[in-house]
Parts: sequence; C-alpha cells; structure tokens
Amino acid sequence: MKIKNVCILGAGTLGTRVALQAALSQFNVRIYDINPKALDTSKKTMETIVHQLAKSSGFEADSGLNAIQGIFFTDNPQVAVQDADIINESVLENVKVKNEVWELFGQIAPEKTIFTTNTSFLLPSMFAEISGRPERFCALHFHDVFYAKGVDIMPHPGTDPKLIPVLEAFGRSLEQVPVVIQKENHGYLFNAMLGAILSTAGKLLANGVGSVEAIDKSYMVNFRVDMGPFAIMDSIGLDTVWHVTVNNNEEGSKAFAALLKGMLDQGKAGVKSGEGFYKYPNPAFRQPGFLS
Amino acid sequence: MKIKNVCILGAGTLGTRVALQAALSQFNVRIYDINPKALDTSKKTMETIVHQLAKSSGFEADSGLNAIQGIFFTDNPQVAVQDADIINESVLENVKVKNEVWELFGQIAPEKTIFTTNTSFLLPSMFAEISGRPERFCALHFHDVFYAKGVDIMPHPGTDPKLIPVLEAFGRSLEQVPVVIQKENHGYLFNAMLGAILSTAGKLLANGVGSVEAIDKSYMVNFRVDMGPFAIMDSIGLDTVWHVTVNNNEEGSKAFAALLKGMLDQGKAGVKSGEGFYKYPNPAFRQPGFLS
Ligand SMILES: NC(=O)c1ccc[n+]([C@@H]2O[C@H](COP(=O)([O-])OP(=O)(O)OC[C@H]3O[C@@H](n4cnc5c(N)ncnc54)[C@H](O)[C@@H]3O)[C@@H](O)[C@H]2O)c1
Ligand SMILES: NC(=O)c1ccc[n+]([C@@H]2O[C@H](COP(=O)([O-])OP(=O)(O)OC[C@H]3O[C@@H](n4cnc5c(N)ncnc54)[C@H](O)[C@@H]3O)[C@@H](O)[C@H]2O)c1
Repeated sequence: MKIKNVCILGAGTLGTRVALQAALSQFNVRIYDINPKALDTSKKTMETIVHQLAKSSGFEADSGLNAIQGIFFTDNPQVAVQDADIINESVLENVKVKNEVWELFGQIAPEKTIFTTNTSFLLPSMFAEISGRPERFCALHFHDVFYAKGVDIMPHPGTDPKLIPVLEAFGRSLEQVPVVIQKENHGYLFNAMLGAILSTAGKLLANGVGSVEAIDKSYMVNFRVDMGPFAIMDSIGLDTVWHVTVNNNEEGSKAFAALLKGMLDQGKAGVKSGEGFYKYPNPAFRQPGFLS
Repeated sequence: MKIKNVCILGAGTLGTRVALQAALSQFNVRIYDINPKALDTSKKTMETIVHQLAKSSGFEADSGLNAIQGIFFTDNPQVAVQDADIINESVLENVKVKNEVWELFGQIAPEKTIFTTNTSFLLPSMFAEISGRPERFCALHFHDVFYAKGVDIMPHPGTDPKLIPVLEAFGRSLEQVPVVIQKENHGYLFNAMLGAILSTAGKLLANGVGSVEAIDKSYMVNFRVDMGPFAIMDSIGLDTVWHVTVNNNEEGSKAFAALLKGMLDQGKAGVKSGEGFYKYPNPAFRQPGFLS
C-alpha cells in the first residue's frame, strides 16, 4: 500500500515536527488540533525550524517555507482525515484524551487509513480496540525528528504483521531510522535506556554522591558527547522529568522527585523557563572551561 | 606537594595505560607487577598504543617510544616504590589481592608517598586501614586514559581533604578531566550510569522486547554516537559484564546473566575473543547500512 496523504493529530511540539518533515518529504499533509491557537503556533514554529535547518545544514529555506504553505491546518476532524492513508497521532499524553480522539477518528476515517500513535510511555494496546481497527493500529513513535532520527515501530499483540514493513518504509521516507520493537514495552527501547540514565543520575545527586556538574562532566568526557544527563533533563523539561520520576518506584527515586518538585515550585522548569539545573541561554556546561 | 615520581602497581590493561600517559607527561615512572611476563607484555602494548596515537593524532611516534624507554619495569616492590611521590594501584580487581598489595606497600613505601587505587567497583575504605596511612589513601580511577579521559577522585571518610586538589592537579597533568566524588559509591558516577544503561539494554534483550541490533540502533541514532550498549559490552569483555550482572539483584538481571553465561560457554567473550554480540574485526554495527 502506497502512503501519500498523511494526517497528523495534535499540533503541539511533536505533531508540528512530524507534519513538517512529512511535508518536506513531499507527502500531502493535513494537521488537526482541537485548539485553533495551537494551529497558528504550529505554523510559526515550523517556519522557525525551517530557518534553523537552513542555517545548520545548507538546506534551502525557501523550499522549506513552500512546503509549509502546502500543509493544511484545520480544527475540523472530518476535513483533517479526508482521504488519509495514515494517521499519526500526537495529542496530549493522557489516556482519556487519546481514547476520545481514537474513538472519534475510528468512526470518521476512511477504511484504508492506517492508525498510528506517538505516545511516549503508554501502549498501543490501550487504544487499539476503541479505534475500531486494532489490526491496523500500531505505535509509530518519533523522537525529535530533526536531531534524534529514530522512529520506533511497536505493534500490540493484535497488529497485522504486514503493517510493519509499510511503516518501516514510511519512516525511511521521512529520513528516520526505523527501529522495530518485538513486544509492547513502556518507553520502547531508547526511552527505557534514557530513563535509566536519568534516574541513576538523579539518585546520585539526591544521595549526595556527586554534584550536577560532576555527574554531567563524567558523562560528557567519558562518552565524548556534548550534554550530560542534567543538561538533557533541562531540555526535556523538569515538569515531564518530575512526572516520570514520581511514578518510579525504585529506591532513591522519591528523594530525586522531591528535589525536582522543589525546583518546579521555584519556577525552574529547565530550558523553557530560563533555568533548571543550569541557567540559559548560556549554561555552564557549554562554557569552554567546563571540561577541565 | 610536588609529584615527580610515579609508581604504578599492576602492569595489566589499565596500569600499562596510566604508566604510559605518565611517562608521556614527563613524570618519572616505575611500573611493578608480580608477574615478569606481564611486564614484557606491558612494554609491547605501550609501543602499540604509541603507534596508534601517532596514526590517529599527529603525535610523534619517536618521542613516545623514547618516553617508554624511560619507564622502569620491575618485579621488585622495593625498587618500584623507591622515592615514589604517588602510587596508583591497578592490580587484579580482587579484595584479597589488593589487601596483600596494600599491606606490603604500606610497609615499604617512603613516608611521603600518596596512595591511590584504581578499583572499578570496590571502595577505597576497604584498603585504607591496611595500607597504614588512611588519611593519604584515595581512589584515583582512570577510564581508558586515551579515549575516555575522565579521572574519578573518590575519598573515603578518612581521607585528608587537602589531598583532593593535589590529585586534581595530578589528573590534569595527565591530560585527564578530574571528577570529584563527594561520597564513596560503588562505580563512582560514570560507571554507575554506564551500568544502568547496560543492565537496561540486557533486560530489554532477555525479555524479548528488542533484538541486539534494534537496541543498539535506537541508542546510536537517537544519541548520535557510534556504539550502542551491546557494542560497548563486547569491548568491555562479556566475562566482566557477566560478573557485574550476576551480582545485580534487580528484576530481569538473572535472565540476562544466564544469556551471557551461555555465550561465554561457547567462547564468545566479546572483541577479545573475536565474537560476542557481534563478530570482529568487522562488526555489523560499523557497516555502512546499519543505521538505515
Ligand atoms: N515532545 C516530544 O518531544 C515528544 C516525543 C515523542 C513523543 N511525544 C508524544 O507526542 C504526544 C504529544 O506530545 P507533545 O509534546 O507534542 O504535547 P503538546 O502538549 O506540545 O501538544 C499536544 C497537542 O494536543 C492538542 N490536543 C489536546 N487535546 C486534543 C484533542 N482532544 N484533539 C486534538 N488535539 C488535542 C493540544 O491542543 C496540543 O496542541 C504525546 O503522546 C507525547 O508522549 C512527544
Ligand atoms: N581495564 C580497564 O579498563 C579498567 C578501567 C578502570 C579501572 N580498572 C581497574 O584496574 C585494576 C586492574 O584492572 P586491569 O583490567 O588492568 O586488570 P588486568 O588483569 O589486565 O591486570 C592486573 C595485573 O595485576 C597483576 N597482579 C596480580 N596480582 C598482583 C600482585 N599481588 N602484585 C602485583 N601485581 C599483581 C597481574 O599480573 C596483572 O598484570 C582493577 O582494579 C580494575 O577494576 C580497570
């Protein structure tokens, strides 16, 4: 089956990026959000991303801006899903909201439409039945699309195996590296490993074994990468990190969750609030002397 | 206090590398091993490393080979420690052996000598008393010296705090980035995080969530690095990884330990045996198409 028409549900952080990449990859793209303001913001964000890409990688801004002009932004679900070959859903990470969305789109989508969800920590089996087409329901989970280019393909037990190669090809056509997960797992493969790193770093800090800077330094210098776990947490957003940490029952996680809560109460939510473990826009870990 | 004379105990994998870097950094170096054959191998390994460094980084092979000529290789403990300002111990990771070594050197070392251990998973407090100078005993733990350039400085509760800046300066003079640990911890900071990554990857594999290739691929593409956790395990050696895994009481670790044991029984110990999770010298993860 040939995918040409792509319908993105949710025009937030991730939906915006997936929709933009799909347009850049020559798909016909419609993007839907329940909130018209989110659609406006989404379009502006796409323009910003195109200018950043143009700066960082010899890519032509004009062709990117043209691609955005071709995207159809709508708050009308029927219009959004008209003639869609695939839906990739990126609405709020909330079971109730995702259930409502999949119940609705299960009723109005054309018969041919493949259903995929971008959920980060929930499972496709949680929404497969309510969508009315469990055999054509699968997780298709992007990371940030333009920097981290993996796309996870995670079927639930009822997914038709014939869907997998179709989604792999679709992922490749979006310039991503497809990663097939054999069995449903909260956090797929990468988020599970990332979660282990971040929670270990958090426990080392909360237990007084090392400072934020020492932990990040040891990670950066020994792996030879440019960000450590606390810098990564700042970029994810400490609200999201707190949410995951407080639901983690491992020993030591409670103390780190409390530490995060204290920071959030002071308005420190990471990069987006100007301060988290580091101060932005010029965090200490990016200063020349940090690794010395 | 000025460090000029460096005594390395143990001429295995790590002692060899620390001794070589110390000689390259213009220290007077003596290296001791109980096994004369280890000393021969150590010298040959140093020559190989110097040639590799010369290839990879415009460094002059001749000056490196000269530095090796200046190193004193000995199986005589008294000669090894004569006039030493610092000992950095890299003998077998075994409590009994390290105890014997520290008891001996505590008796024969000059009064001025600082005592440091490279133990990966044990704690300095385990050897501080038997060395006879707990206040001048500290962990000074290197990674691989030439690629991963962090050096952990981990005092035990009885270490004189004045030792820390001395060891930081010494670490810098060996072209390492010093990382100070505030409180004794098995695995310092970096090894604790690395261990969490590897054990999570191992559990994902043992539980059938993803294949070796899928797990490594997702790690490599999303972090944009050139090795995933299974490639790292192969390079560490699966015997060492098994040893750590079998002592890990976390749920799921037992299944991964059993999987490792099965591989070891078939002679698959990683890079050093020619096969582990991948086949060497041309492992799949280094082939051009791996990330696609
Ligand atoms: N942000 C990331 O980097 C990232 C990465 C991978 C996966 N995800 C997943 O993508 C999904 C979205 O995350 P996000 O960060 O983009 O969130 P976000 O809050 O930025 O965007 C969510 C959007 O969903 C819209 N929405 C809410 N209810 C809706 C409804 N009933 N119908 C239609 N739209 C509705 C909101 O208006 C908002 O624009 C989540 O499941 C998340 O786990 C996010
Ligand atoms: N290999 C690494 O990458 C690495 C990294 C950091 C720390 N370490 C630590 O360094 C230490 C050594 O590890 P390695 O990998 O070099 O081991 P290795 O087995 O390669 O070398 C150990 C050496 O100790 C010698 N030895 C044994 N008993 C001795 C004794 N009584 N007196 C003197 N020498 C004796 C052996 O002959 C051998 O040459 C361990 O504590 C390990 O945890 C290793």
